[in-house]
Amino acid sequence: MLDRIDINCDMGESYGAYSLGRDSEVMEYISSANIACGWHAGDPLVMDYTVGLAKEKGGGVGAHPAYPDLMGFGRRRMDLTFREIENYVIYQIGALHGFTKAHGIPLQHVKAHGALGNLAFVDLEASKAFARGVFRVSKDLILVVYTGTVMVQAAKEIGIRFVEEVYADRVYNPNGTLQSRKIPGSVIHDPDTAAQRALTMVQEGYVVAHDGTKVKVNPESICVHGDTPTAAEILQKIRGGLGKVSIEVKPMGMTG
Amino acid sequence: MLDRIDINCDMGESYGAYSLGRDSEVMEYISSANIACGWHAGDPLVMDYTVGLAKEKGGGVGAHPAYPDLMGFGRRRMDLTFREIENYVIYQIGALHGFTKAHGIPLQHVKAHGALGNLAFVDLEASKAFARGVFRVSKDLILVVYTGTVMVQAAKEIGIRFVEEVYADRVYNPNGTLQSRKIPGSVIHDPDTAAQRALTMVQEGYVVAHDGTKVKVNPESICVHGDTPTAAEILQKIRGGLGKVSIEVKPMGMTG
Amino acid sequence: MLDRIDINCDMGESYGAYSLGRDSEVMEYISSANIACGWHAGDPLVMDYTVGLAKEKGGGVGAHPAYPDLMGFGRRRMDLTFREIENYVIYQIGALHGFTKAHGIPLQHVKAHGALGNLAFVDLEASKAFARGVFRVSKDLILVVYTGTVMVQAAKEIGIRFVEEVYADRVYNPNGTLQSRKIPGSVIHDPDTAAQRALTMVQEGYVVAHDGTKVKVNPESICVHGDTPTAAEILQKIRGGLGKVSIEVKPMGMTG
Amino acid sequence: MLDRIDINCDMGESYGAYSLGRDSEVMEYISSANIACGWHAGDPLVMDYTVGLAKEKGGGVGAHPAYPDLMGFGRRRMDLTFREIENYVIYQIGALHGFTKAHGIPLQHVKAHGALGNLAFVDLEASKAFARGVFRVSKDLILVVYTGTVMVQAAKEIGIRFVEEVYADRVYNPNGTLQSRKIPGSVIHDPDTAAQRALTMVQEGYVVAHDGTKVKVNPESICVHGDTPTAAEILQKIRGGLGKVSIEVKPMGMTG
Repeated sequence: MLDRIDINCDMGESYGAYSLGRDSEVMEYISSANIACGWHAGDPLVMDYTVGLAKEKGGGVGAHPAYPDLMGFGRRRMDLTFREIENYVIYQIGALHGFTKAHGIPLQHVKAHGALGNLAFVDLEASKAFARGVFRVSKDLILVVYTGTVMVQAAKEIGIRFVEEVYADRVYNPNGTLQSRKIPGSVIHDPDTAAQRALTMVQEGYVVAHDGTKVKVNPESICVHGDTPTAAEILQKIRGGLGKVSIEVKPMGMTG
Repeated sequence: MLDRIDINCDMGESYGAYSLGRDSEVMEYISSANIACGWHAGDPLVMDYTVGLAKEKGGGVGAHPAYPDLMGFGRRRMDLTFREIENYVIYQIGALHGFTKAHGIPLQHVKAHGALGNLAFVDLEASKAFARGVFRVSKDLILVVYTGTVMVQAAKEIGIRFVEEVYADRVYNPNGTLQSRKIPGSVIHDPDTAAQRALTMVQEGYVVAHDGTKVKVNPESICVHGDTPTAAEILQKIRGGLGKVSIEVKPMGMTG
Repeated sequence: MLDRIDINCDMGESYGAYSLGRDSEVMEYISSANIACGWHAGDPLVMDYTVGLAKEKGGGVGAHPAYPDLMGFGRRRMDLTFREIENYVIYQIGALHGFTKAHGIPLQHVKAHGALGNLAFVDLEASKAFARGVFRVSKDLILVVYTGTVMVQAAKEIGIRFVEEVYADRVYNPNGTLQSRKIPGSVIHDPDTAAQRALTMVQEGYVVAHDGTKVKVNPESICVHGDTPTAAEILQKIRGGLGKVSIEVKPMGMTG
Repeated sequence: MLDRIDINCDMGESYGAYSLGRDSEVMEYISSANIACGWHAGDPLVMDYTVGLAKEKGGGVGAHPAYPDLMGFGRRRMDLTFREIENYVIYQIGALHGFTKAHGIPLQHVKAHGALGNLAFVDLEASKAFARGVFRVSKDLILVVYTGTVMVQAAKEIGIRFVEEVYADRVYNPNGTLQSRKIPGSVIHDPDTAAQRALTMVQEGYVVAHDGTKVKVNPESICVHGDTPTAAEILQKIRGGLGKVSIEVKPMGMTG
């Protein structure tokens, strides 16, 4: 059984006059931060602040590249070429890397945001284009892949280091994919439910899908969404639960 | 007298369906490329291509950060705070750095574009904010400063390595600033005139302003604008002139 | 003495995933809505919703054009040419007009947002460029001008219908300009204070500046900022105060 | 047989420092201009200029709404909701309408650009969302539909006035759709070939697909792409050919 696990969360999604998320609160509970790079959310001031916050709290810093779609928060699929995906990823990782260098800390990982992540879950060639972009920037970067998807295969083919993640606050389909956000109830807001699911995944290696199917998972990192209103409460409960069974929470660079 | 000099030129200013400049041609003659970072021009595909082109031709690669103003090509002054300037610079340098890492070459320098450069020429605190952004990303980066301006002082105060540049294709004011582009004739299109001015600056250390005043300059790099229709011809003439008096053209990392 | 007055408020400043303001609540109290046109805030879904909301509540609809600066919420001065100002205004008014046409209601007025408004307060030529843009779209549009500024002169020179506004929730300088937001305390959050100021301006025709000077004003419309956390409370108090002295609140098209 | 036909062409696709197309030359030959609205191309200065140019030459003015994708020139499919399509269309039509009002001329038509047009060709519900957006702005606007597609049905269901167009410079599939631009040779550059195809479509009512199939068409407007390098030559030949058989070229508002 695992004795340590990473918890990752999307961070730095404010933009200009717009505030989103409870980053300073959430950062207390997580070990890896996926920081928006300005294309779906985040601006340079927000990025600077968020990297500084992660550094202060000892969290690992990751880039969270997305489609060029601020108006849609990166949640709308765009028909990009693989070359576009690869280069858009390089750009955004680089931009965030500027801030980790400015703060004197390493860039730990990269995770695809929103609709780009959804595409990478199911399209091997898109997944490889994404992974290739990450790998071209640095062979030391960890690619966060969604457990049981083609992203695992893509990471292996590209030869990039990767960490498999599971979702504590999302409903699963029996085939292991996430139930679409468009279906009401797909995002779990109840802290106890989310915490229990996280614990079962880490300790037992499975999650119960919406139809009762036990889906096998291989969690190295647990994802919690920072824009869920109860994100801080969910995280508190998860950490409490993990603590009781002596599972430490550490940045994925130390667990993967 | 100098036996080597750098020639720098703005590159990578195309964007999406829009083509600008004759980059592949110009790259033959220059030794350092100032590459647009997506805010006033350039997109990730263009950045990837342009960094690859510079690598192929042996040119030094620099970031060319600008105001967030694609519609105005970065040529319109914006009232940013110093903190905004600093962080906008970090973002853009980082983005380009992603591509130099992807191509396995170092990032050599940073030069302010357009109206942000014009501000840095005359405003010490803005100049320092810009230099601080560069310095925070890496102490190895060279800041290109316009000779005889407060940028020199800013670079010294921040403690960053810098190179002084002169313009071969712009008319000078008697106080050493550049005559505004809004005044007709301020950009020199005639290759022979531009080449002669470059040679005089390098060999004699002065340039003749529009009123006949000899302005003292200390050139370590000569700037030529790639969007001048005759840019390639100007560069060819300059290189010919420098060659005749045995002055080598080398990236600023080797001259500064 | 006045027996009717307009109350205007900035509305529709949400954008994509980002929520800002308490529009549905605020709309209960105001008579004219200045709706963001997508350049500093607002997106087409937000514009459609906000115009629909104003229609439902009987509020007059106005366009609130701004600099092209979503990242800075239109609060940063940009050095535009007068031709740019004029055409940027036409674009944004047109865009909002699309939605008023879609809802079958007239476009009532236009008011400059943020830094563009601040420029128009003090620069006659910029003010005229703004007014000219409005006038070119339609001679029926009302230009909201800040009382006592060059905007009044600009409106007169262009020949456009205009309405003079005052601010209930901002501290005044003795010369009648607004104290910069950068100075703490410049935005009044206390509902009673704001309401009292509004009443004094409407009934007595003056406002007390930060140094005690009584500044003469000629209010046809009172502006309250929707992004003030206490906006709804301020508005409620103002309406209560106006009601007690039998001053009706009506869209500026009926008061100006 | 027809005695008059419209020729439409995409116009106003320059942006800021970027020039695209030979608008002033092309405008001599066409009768209806589809003008970019700033989302895939075009900026307010370009829109103002292009509307002025169309007015001067007597061309009908139309809006050319697109996906919000300047970087991809609106040529990349985005997964928008129907509500987003409808409102994005309203916004862009409105914006261009601002300029036609400023120039004192009517807005004649609306045509979907790029990937949004390609979607509308094949997706009835998307087509209806587009048509609904146009119809909501004004019942007098003509919707340009691609002949033989679901756009015809969409226009009929919404009850909007429409005009069917054909392409003189694109290769057809046997089912009447356009062969993808990704296939080399899909855009016809030869002026004589394009002119002959146009004439056959107008006079005979068919076009020969890439496999020899005669595809029936019902042309009320002929589209020629302004970004084809030979656009002006193609247009000249088409007009010459139409002139010989006494078919007049008139804005679609007079032919449809």
